Amino acid sequence: MDVAVFLIQCPDRRGIVAAISGFFSQRSYNILQCQQYTDSARGQYFMRIKIDLNSSDFSASRLESEFESVAAAFRLKWSAHFSTKRQRVAILCTKTEHCIYDLIIRQRSGELPCTISVIISNHLHLEHIAHQFDIPFYHAPVNAGSRDSQERTVLQILRQHRTDLVVLARYMQILSPTLIEELQGRVINIHHAVLPAFEGARPYERAYERGVKMIGATAHYATSDLDQGPIIEQDVARVTHEETVADLKRIGRDIERVVLARAVKAHLEHRIITSGPRTIVFSAS
Amino acid sequence: MDVAVFLIQCPDRRGIVAAISGFFSQRSYNILQCQQYTDSARGQYFMRIKIDLNSSDFSASRLESEFESVAAAFRLKWSAHFSTKRQRVAILCTKTEHCIYDLIIRQRSGELPCTISVIISNHLHLEHIAHQFDIPFYHAPVNAGSRDSQERTVLQILRQHRTDLVVLARYMQILSPTLIEELQGRVINIHHAVLPAFEGARPYERAYERGVKMIGATAHYATSDLDQGPIIEQDVARVTHEETVADLKRIGRDIERVVLARAVKAHLEHRIITSGPRTIVFSAS
Amino acid sequence: MDVAVFLIQCPDRRGIVAAISGFFSQRSYNILQCQQYTDSARGQYFMRIKIDLNSSDFSASRLESEFESVAAAFRLKWSAHFSTKRQRVAILCTKTEHCIYDLIIRQRSGELPCTISVIISNHLHLEHIAHQFDIPFYHAPVNAGSRDSQERTVLQILRQHRTDLVVLARYMQILSPTLIEELQGRVINIHHAVLPAFEGARPYERAYERGVKMIGATAHYATSDLDQGPIIEQDVARVTHEETVADLKRIGRDIERVVLARAVKAHLEHRIITSGPRTIVFSAS
Amino acid sequence: MDVAVFLIQCPDRRGIVAAISGFFSQRSYNILQCQQYTDSARGQYFMRIKIDLNSSDFSASRLESEFESVAAAFRLKWSAHFSTKRQRVAILCTKTEHCIYDLIIRQRSGELPCTISVIISNHLHLEHIAHQFDIPFYHAPVNAGSRDSQERTVLQILRQHRTDLVVLARYMQILSPTLIEELQGRVINIHHAVLPAFEGARPYERAYERGVKMIGATAHYATSDLDQGPIIEQDVARVTHEETVADLKRIGRDIERVVLARAVKAHLEHRIITSGPRTIVFSAS
Repeated sequence: MDVAVFLIQCPDRRGIVAAISGFFSQRSYNILQCQQYTDSARGQYFMRIKIDLNSSDFSASRLESEFESVAAAFRLKWSAHFSTKRQRVAILCTKTEHCIYDLIIRQRSGELPCTISVIISNHLHLEHIAHQFDIPFYHAPVNAGSRDSQERTVLQILRQHRTDLVVLARYMQILSPTLIEELQGRVINIHHAVLPAFEGARPYERAYERGVKMIGATAHYATSDLDQGPIIEQDVARVTHEETVADLKRIGRDIERVVLARAVKAHLEHRIITSGPRTIVFSAS
Repeated sequence: MDVAVFLIQCPDRRGIVAAISGFFSQRSYNILQCQQYTDSARGQYFMRIKIDLNSSDFSASRLESEFESVAAAFRLKWSAHFSTKRQRVAILCTKTEHCIYDLIIRQRSGELPCTISVIISNHLHLEHIAHQFDIPFYHAPVNAGSRDSQERTVLQILRQHRTDLVVLARYMQILSPTLIEELQGRVINIHHAVLPAFEGARPYERAYERGVKMIGATAHYATSDLDQGPIIEQDVARVTHEETVADLKRIGRDIERVVLARAVKAHLEHRIITSGPRTIVFSAS
Repeated sequence: MDVAVFLIQCPDRRGIVAAISGFFSQRSYNILQCQQYTDSARGQYFMRIKIDLNSSDFSASRLESEFESVAAAFRLKWSAHFSTKRQRVAILCTKTEHCIYDLIIRQRSGELPCTISVIISNHLHLEHIAHQFDIPFYHAPVNAGSRDSQERTVLQILRQHRTDLVVLARYMQILSPTLIEELQGRVINIHHAVLPAFEGARPYERAYERGVKMIGATAHYATSDLDQGPIIEQDVARVTHEETVADLKRIGRDIERVVLARAVKAHLEHRIITSGPRTIVFSAS
Repeated sequence: MDVAVFLIQCPDRRGIVAAISGFFSQRSYNILQCQQYTDSARGQYFMRIKIDLNSSDFSASRLESEFESVAAAFRLKWSAHFSTKRQRVAILCTKTEHCIYDLIIRQRSGELPCTISVIISNHLHLEHIAHQFDIPFYHAPVNAGSRDSQERTVLQILRQHRTDLVVLARYMQILSPTLIEELQGRVINIHHAVLPAFEGARPYERAYERGVKMIGATAHYATSDLDQGPIIEQDVARVTHEETVADLKRIGRDIERVVLARAVKAHLEHRIITSGPRTIVFSAS
């Protein structure tokens, strides 16, 4: 089935549901899903609407242009996403393999609707994984003096592979504001702590020192403020005094990969709208 | 704010969202929430729509009668619930106090939008709780030979207190089909296991014997088939070999009261639609 | 059954288990439980040993004095706790009732092995709860200028009631270093966030602003550094963009009371050893 | 570090801890871990003791024979496990790949202390995974008439590869009592439900039909009674009415692989003692 997903946000006012659902009904589209959320405190309205493109003879190309009339009337900020276009994902990694294996295996099993088009790393440790699954691999080493040129190389590779989404799968480099700007809203990072706890480096070591009883991970959109981007997904596990730092890291790996996979899946299914520092993540169906 | 909630189910077809949301928009109502779910396998559509009654000058009394025209066109099965009518809850209990304390304290704190109008028990053990909180208490003892007459007494008390919802808070009696029939869809029971595991009596003892690593509780609508009613809410806790039966009961109490409270809250907020053996439980906002 | 619990810590070395278990065996005590933990990184050893006092004719009064010989040989830091002495708990609160109700009901049901000897509050809002359960209540109001004298009053009440443990059940006052010093290791506080996230005031509001997907609570020993004391217990709940600040507070209440109750229970059962900023919390049996 | 783990069970009586820890102390062994559990209801005592083999000059070969004297005195049922012997694991699978990928990747990352010596399947679907990781693969097809001969083939392969543990990673065949008998206590199965709920076939479909709000998985030792073996580990995830059967299967995969991996890890680390239908699973350190 070919579908389109419209992601919409606007100031809250009467008649929005009726107007938008009416727009699609009048063009004979079957609405497969219509999810809404009103942020009463800020007076903002959010909608995700999913339609069956095959249910109407209406031209998909006219759909977007005609939708502009509703959009103007309600001051909608919106985007439309068509399942006919397969999204292309690039994975950036360093030496840690659990997240990258996990993403590839989920993609292969059909769980992530995308193509993993390229793997880029500043090290060679994980090249064999790219080979195991026949995914193009690029080695883009970096040191203190070469960050700018390395980032230009990375950006060139991302463009060349027509990348829709960049996943930082434990990529231990901080992206420059320039690169973040260029990829705005299209970079998902996994942080190995329940943000805002333990922002920055060595979160498991610090969690151990602090003696916490829960550890976790956070997937968020990367912004130029480190570890401050809008949170997409978090999860935790209970730990006790018995766990060493190595145990925390091992337990954490299971959380990291699940949290990252859920965030990537939500993004690929167009279920996320960002609103300032917060995300609206509509449930999967 | 005075609100009305419409709960709707019907065969799935095009144009439902637009028609229903249009109905309210045309009468100038502000739609506060519009939640939907489509059961594709069965071709059934479900909606919960919440409107601000004060947002329109339209007469609330005409609302229901005019809605019938939409209802007929789409073969809707529906009900409307007005916040202006405060619901009245009866609690049936035996000797176990944790659930009943929990419900009362939540109600007093404003978490449960209802009046606890009466407590009925086949024993006197919990009478003091009713007194502590000034709630009418009835002692309706029962033995093998007196079940029918006891149930008539119970039913009479429920009617006299104009009961909207009956909560079986660890009421260790099986209700007769007659009583269940009379109270159809208005009796919530808490079972101390993750149904369908450990249906019937002594679930914690059996969980211990079986050596399970998770225990839990299930809130469900009571039907004439014991422990078979539509499940509203479940939750669990991890246990180890170290826990004795007494430990399981203690840990279980924390799950039971939270699960029961969530189910009662969902019912009172008109967030549940029953569809055969399943419930659709819309999220709270 | 009368029992004694010995809590022990010392530098790790060979023969500790054999020496300590041998000490009790030689005096014919039945060891009911023997739990150990070695912090390899710091070379520290911890033990909790629980013995059946009735299993030996040995004099309990001589037990402690003779244990000193083992203690000296292994440089043990230790304490002994006898079930024959019932612990006395004071609850300090302000206006929030869920934790205080929860502690009282658990104590009444036998879940917490203690007497709740007194409730002290800087407000009168919760006095009725003390009355409902026949617990002495003291009103100790405080303002910017009267903190010192109020704390002296509080301390006097605590002494007068021979208080073993102070529970800050959402007591919205910061204790002075003097008071903390006096009550060292005997004050448990509940913070309504997963520390170290959202230390300080208004954690739910800040959690909402940050757009987190998990909220939680932390029970810890109070120290003179605010929200920095050794963590005893934490737990969390998953939330979504839909939850308002009021929803977070409501969901949080369920976590707060369970986390606080678990921490208090662990303390009362002598299952906690503090080691710098960390706690060793032995499992219940 | 070379270590030995002793797993012990016996009737509970005084002096066991002192006697056993004394045995190792007298031979100058450093006790790294000493975990105990008393099943008071049945009067049974369980111990796991882990010693540093390098901490004593005592001959490891004499250790077992001399331990027999303690064993006889206390009627111990015991086994000793030496880290110097690397365990060999065989994986049996059919067409489902998530568990097998997961086990291999964990083994490669050092998380599972074993060699995956062979993969056996009744289908060819997963042969490529064996190739990707250079693990011997055997195709042992089976149909209604060939089960006995297929099992003989399987058993021969297991013996030839000196298999210590067999993992049924979603192997959709029921093992015969003969094979189970032969491999007693050395076969771990993953069932895709929270046993005892949904024993038998198609658990996710039945979970959907029943409308449960939690799904899960169970790892257990295989016995000749299907889905009745001692449970090692369980975990769950919360689901709603929105999840289809396909969604339940996808969510379930994440639980299945974590639950299976934890159970296999506990077995390989000699942390499990079986007692009738129950398992004692000592915590990892």
